[in-house]
Amino acid sequence: MPTLCKPAVAVPEHVITVEQTLEFARRMHADNPQLALALKLIRNTGVQKRHIVQPIEQTLEHPGFEERNRVYEAESKKRTPAVIDEALANAGLTVRDIDAIIYVSCTGFMMPSLTAWLINELGFRSDTRQIPIAQLGCAAGGAAINRAHDFCRAYPEGNVLIVSCELCSLCYQPTDADVGNLLSDGLFGDAVAAVVVRGAGGTGMSLERNGSYLIPHTQDWISYAVRATGFHFRLDRRVPGTMEPLAPVMRDLAADHGWEASELGFYIIHAGGPRILDDLSKFLGVDPVAFRYSRATLTEYGNIASAVVLDALARLFDDGGPADGATGVVAGFGPGITAEMSLGTWSAGRPDGARRP
Amino acid sequence: MPTLCKPAVAVPEHVITVEQTLEFARRMHADNPQLALALKLIRNTGVQKRHIVQPIEQTLEHPGFEERNRVYEAESKKRTPAVIDEALANAGLTVRDIDAIIYVSCTGFMMPSLTAWLINELGFRSDTRQIPIAQLGCAAGGAAINRAHDFCRAYPEGNVLIVSCELCSLCYQPTDADVGNLLSDGLFGDAVAAVVVRGAGGTGMSLERNGSYLIPHTQDWISYAVRATGFHFRLDRRVPGTMEPLAPVMRDLAADHGWEASELGFYIIHAGGPRILDDLSKFLGVDPVAFRYSRATLTEYGNIASAVVLDALARLFDDGGPADGATGVVAGFGPGITAEMSLGTWSAGRPDGARRP
Repeated sequence: MPTLCKPAVAVPEHVITVEQTLEFARRMHADNPQLALALKLIRNTGVQKRHIVQPIEQTLEHPGFEERNRVYEAESKKRTPAVIDEALANAGLTVRDIDAIIYVSCTGFMMPSLTAWLINELGFRSDTRQIPIAQLGCAAGGAAINRAHDFCRAYPEGNVLIVSCELCSLCYQPTDADVGNLLSDGLFGDAVAAVVVRGAGGTGMSLERNGSYLIPHTQDWISYAVRATGFHFRLDRRVPGTMEPLAPVMRDLAADHGWEASELGFYIIHAGGPRILDDLSKFLGVDPVAFRYSRATLTEYGNIASAVVLDALARLFDDGGPADGATGVVAGFGPGITAEMSLGTWSAGRPDGARRP
Repeated sequence: MPTLCKPAVAVPEHVITVEQTLEFARRMHADNPQLALALKLIRNTGVQKRHIVQPIEQTLEHPGFEERNRVYEAESKKRTPAVIDEALANAGLTVRDIDAIIYVSCTGFMMPSLTAWLINELGFRSDTRQIPIAQLGCAAGGAAINRAHDFCRAYPEGNVLIVSCELCSLCYQPTDADVGNLLSDGLFGDAVAAVVVRGAGGTGMSLERNGSYLIPHTQDWISYAVRATGFHFRLDRRVPGTMEPLAPVMRDLAADHGWEASELGFYIIHAGGPRILDDLSKFLGVDPVAFRYSRATLTEYGNIASAVVLDALARLFDDGGPADGATGVVAGFGPGITAEMSLGTWSAGRPDGARRP
């Protein structure tokens, strides 16, 4: 059974607190009639601080799409190798054991994707499959886990490395000033993360079943407008309400697996915002405390897009992990509106968990 | 065994001949000291005509990245449904039978990817997996086939729809004028294509083994520079020489499968340019006539990026297909430099080829 091992996560050294966020919003959007609403929404996110790749003053400038993408490339190359090394160590594997790299990132664009550079620079095998995904946004963390799971179903001895590089601060658009934009400016943070799905052996979440779901006719609710100034994030006010239709989908997926979605041992949920977590716990009938790892990610790092589920999972590991055999779910949500869900059982390590010969 | 069925391909209604290409190049780059070389290289491609989504005069204007991407979105929505319908019919399936959509396109960028719109508008199931890939360029056709193959290995009853939408003319950059740019301006064409990989049943190529390969330290040889004006294609002069290192890789992959790469029954090769085909036949020791379907794609449509292998495969079908049991290869090449290769056996239809109940 493929095992989702312990992720490695790194956040950048520049920090912006919620107080600073509110102060900047007041200063830069003083004339915006929706400022008061935006400030209230930002306070309500519960985000206490975020980490960003550049000092805040620099982040607030827009040097052009080309320069931003150059920064994206430089920062991704600077920051991903260390988390990859750590994720491989967590899985007890080396670069030569990896059969596929799934690289997810929606905050910069390169062709070839960073996978080619990683293979060359870090010494992965030349026959490593490259699966770069740029268009699933926050859902891409869950999608990457699910595609890695599928890959290991296809190749039971295979190992897949997932790399998530979300430098959301490089998508800040100073001229975008509707409430959705202002809220987003106070919500998203930067992070890089990596995790290995081991086809055999390993300690972590044994992946058993995955599923995707697209909420019909919501493709405009979370989207990018692509312009000369880069990617402009558009967030519809209906997005926070999407857990009501998604909770039954999660319940059905669990039921297909013979499980009751409200009674799982652990929950790793995309912390898109506070209401996502509040509503999902309500509609699933789960104690909100079950979502504490996701909540902690949101509070300490903000919404770090596809990296949220990896960071929340790392916190579950750091907390000692659930009991061996505990059932659980990982769920990512993002544009589409797409949900990517994964069911599995905690595996506290088995004799076959040793490194492959 | 997963079967790669007959692809559907459509090219746009606007046509530009090689004579027109040469005339435009002469007119627009009269002062370019490398014009003569570029004209010679364009003539040598063997491309007779290309099809493009807008009239040539409009294509040569650059209305800005935002407008181009708007055209990309409109044209992709206009042109993909018909090829999808045809590909499904070719496979004897309906939208409800599809478990995953792999959407490959490097010539426009949308988030969410077109997959969300397709699911909503064409009636695919809400639980259809979305696998959008934008960063593998011309190699993405081969990669899509390989990932579809893997998906069906994981879910033997699964069916995967591949959609390739390459509107290369929307990446024309009037100010880019080195030899690689001028050559590319005369080489790339537009096309949309779709194909189904059926987990069980179907007529076509039974997929047996796939492999990827990254030529070390060539990530800068084919790339995009991402600018306010969009994607700027950069082509290194060393690219046409890449078949010498890749031929042994294909030979090894075939040998791992117990086959001799020089003695296969059919070859569906990415027609990146004429030398790719010439060199690969030489280094594999295969009669160039074996690459006639790829050559025909290049001659009639130009390099249509990830759609080349699908179009060449459609030509193989139209030609009656090889004998049942014939061995063959599909190989896509693109940025990385990445090769995506697939080995399989021709299956002329079996009793289990009927539609799933």
